Amino acid sequence: MSLLEELVEALRVLPGVGQKSAQRMAWHLLERQRTGGKRLARALEEAMQRIGHCERCRTFSEEVVCSLCSSASRDDSLLCVVETPADLAALESATGYRGRYFVLLGRLSPLDGRGPRELGLDLLDARLSEGQIKELIIATSATVEGEATAHYLTQLARRHAVQPTRLAHGVPLGGELEYIDRGTLAHAFGSRHHVPS
Amino acid sequence: MSLLEELVEALRVLPGVGQKSAQRMAWHLLERQRTGGKRLARALEEAMQRIGHCERCRTFSEEVVCSLCSSASRDDSLLCVVETPADLAALESATGYRGRYFVLLGRLSPLDGRGPRELGLDLLDARLSEGQIKELIIATSATVEGEATAHYLTQLARRHAVQPTRLAHGVPLGGELEYIDRGTLAHAFGSRHHVPS
Repeated sequence: MSLLEELVEALRVLPGVGQKSAQRMAWHLLERQRTGGKRLARALEEAMQRIGHCERCRTFSEEVVCSLCSSASRDDSLLCVVETPADLAALESATGYRGRYFVLLGRLSPLDGRGPRELGLDLLDARLSEGQIKELIIATSATVEGEATAHYLTQLARRHAVQPTRLAHGVPLGGELEYIDRGTLAHAFGSRHHVPS
Repeated sequence: MSLLEELVEALRVLPGVGQKSAQRMAWHLLERQRTGGKRLARALEEAMQRIGHCERCRTFSEEVVCSLCSSASRDDSLLCVVETPADLAALESATGYRGRYFVLLGRLSPLDGRGPRELGLDLLDARLSEGQIKELIIATSATVEGEATAHYLTQLARRHAVQPTRLAHGVPLGGELEYIDRGTLAHAFGSRHHVPS
């Protein structure tokens, strides 16, 4: 296999990249972006080698404890549980939330061998035992597995006398009713509330 | 800048990859494909370092002369001129062509500083002087710049008493007339030919 074929093959590890795109990427780098390509090689090597998981919240981190967990300016009484580091980043950039996070790195899915241990729920249990947390914000996804995970987390919070809360479901901002799926619409209709006077 | 941010930034060098896709790629590699990520880092490093251009036809090659140019089983009387290594690969996989290739690595575009020298046309001139080539197959793209390049190549071939030929233009196989652009349709209509009896 030539070096070019090896590069094309290796690029296919990226999500959503098939044979054609991988070829296009390889040619683009070779023709116009050798420096960028070398920089990418080094960044990949470093990241794959040195980025691990934060010991406290399990998000990606090159330090033993990530910057969000070690920051002195966040509220220790709030803990927000998310499925992935991407969800954490989305919440950080969209909300003014100043509490801590806990990242499951997945959702409960016993058939795929993802039980409470794989999601670090023993770690979360120990964290809740510390007694500082007052509210557990459950921000798992609105899928069947996400709901099952949320149910498990609710029970865990109650065992530690911590208040569990969930993100609101309903019509997205800017969403036209006509185009919203039936499930969401039914939920939003059932959860209608009085307009404050 | 953290290693993760550096990786996301470096991934944006790939064509068609913006901030969001770069993040998704970085997370995907870190979560599920560390081995694939390391392999990609090595393949990139090697390729950027060691892949150069074939001395004879200018396509990508890790050897001084590429395998197509050094092969003893190709016809030395046919030379096909293409714009990019991607075009070469497309012709190789679609046709049964057994001649040689010459890769311009671009098209004539004086305003962007791409003149005959940048396209290696001095090299092509020397090649035509060798006297082995009987037919120069001009397979540049059907764009304004591609046509200008083809015109230049035609004259070059004639100076060396080599027969220039061009790929046929017309209705693509499986193409419905209704959906074909006016230019192509007008060309195909004007170039209609007798049905062989």
